[in-house]
Amino acid sequence: MTKAMKVRGCRIGEGMPKICVPVMGSTEEEIIRRITEAVDKGPDLVEWRADFFAGIHDEKRVRGVLDGARKYLEKTPLLFTVRTEGEGGALAADADTYDRILLGAAGDGPDLVDVEIMPDAAHAAVLIESLHKKGVAVIGSNHHFHETPDSVEMRKILSDMERAGADILKLAVMPNTAEDVLRLLAVTEAYRRQTEKPLVTMSMGRLGAVSRLAGELVGSSVTFGSVAQASAPGQIDLADMRKILELLHG
Amino acid sequence: MTKAMKVRGCRIGEGMPKICVPVMGSTEEEIIRRITEAVDKGPDLVEWRADFFAGIHDEKRVRGVLDGARKYLEKTPLLFTVRTEGEGGALAADADTYDRILLGAAGDGPDLVDVEIMPDAAHAAVLIESLHKKGVAVIGSNHHFHETPDSVEMRKILSDMERAGADILKLAVMPNTAEDVLRLLAVTEAYRRQTEKPLVTMSMGRLGAVSRLAGELVGSSVTFGSVAQASAPGQIDLADMRKILELLHG
Repeated sequence: MTKAMKVRGCRIGEGMPKICVPVMGSTEEEIIRRITEAVDKGPDLVEWRADFFAGIHDEKRVRGVLDGARKYLEKTPLLFTVRTEGEGGALAADADTYDRILLGAAGDGPDLVDVEIMPDAAHAAVLIESLHKKGVAVIGSNHHFHETPDSVEMRKILSDMERAGADILKLAVMPNTAEDVLRLLAVTEAYRRQTEKPLVTMSMGRLGAVSRLAGELVGSSVTFGSVAQASAPGQIDLADMRKILELLHG
Repeated sequence: MTKAMKVRGCRIGEGMPKICVPVMGSTEEEIIRRITEAVDKGPDLVEWRADFFAGIHDEKRVRGVLDGARKYLEKTPLLFTVRTEGEGGALAADADTYDRILLGAAGDGPDLVDVEIMPDAAHAAVLIESLHKKGVAVIGSNHHFHETPDSVEMRKILSDMERAGADILKLAVMPNTAEDVLRLLAVTEAYRRQTEKPLVTMSMGRLGAVSRLAGELVGSSVTFGSVAQASAPGQIDLADMRKILELLHG
């Protein structure tokens, strides 16, 4: 049974799935402008996909964006994500660099930090512990852009994330068949009955789009919606998403 | 692999799920008015739920409604349904009466006739053969308003409908858990790979509402949307439904 997690005013893991809007940009101005545009649409969370930021390796510039963003975000929680090339993102860097960027950003900036659990869950566990000491909550994540792993493997990934200490467990997979989409939903629904941690799962692409709407049914607590640019295939516009989730919520 | 079935201009079993609007009423005037209201909203099919009609036992009155309805329907196919009490409808009658009503209505009135397959699939097979001779296509149907049968049983029901000669196989079940909803979707997805007949399945109620949107994913070819009155729990408004199906269709 999911235990809701409160981040600012946002209760993740309770009621309707929360809508998170990803924001990308290469310069400070572009990122701040896109954050303000996103906030205007009323998302429940904003994710800064910092791997596209030209200043990603400069801690001061990263903190500059985080400080600047906070006043525009007002009460909206911010998720700080650096997606590596291995998981479909733009950052090409070794594990030490990845850790340094995340630890440099944590502190009084983001509310949540995304930590990629693979390939080394033990390494991720150490990073998560350090991030927790800095007072941020952690979304453990794992992405498969070409296939949907078998169901036993998906359960193991979620379990590895949980054992590594992540507060929220996120798994994104690509379906090749309708059955793949249903397997992702079934794994989610079964895993939420054995954990208290909020889950965030999705089956990407057009084929998997229903999974972005079915969160309340299967226990996926956050869904990613776009306002202008989609950060992953299959994302649905924020306004459409909210209307559909409300309709399904009843 | 589904083989599309053409009814007037409507290709059932191909592309986006088709939206069918149910219409109920007790008098001729009320039924015709509701059919015109429904047609104005642009459904792909209209279903007349004739079990609510005060003149249901009078063949001439039934044919009067069907004749009157045709000009308002223009090119929209009409599904004629008499739902019995045993399956959540208003008709209390024995099997002979049920058969007589359906055979009386078939002819040059409706394009499709709904035939309840249970409790006696062999009896239904005879009725379906007679209806086919009158030139109408048949939707075999089965409804469970209190539970979702186990998956083996659901596959058997679909298979019984197919063997009884139905052209389209419709199964509506009530979920008590999220897992029930996923089972209905999985049974649908698996069965469509073994049949050429279009399927129409739904998991009813608020809990199952996602199943009304997931038809293109799992192979459910028709979804029931409401314009004013819902005829079963969990139905979504026609305009909302179309927008969501288009969004998922891409």
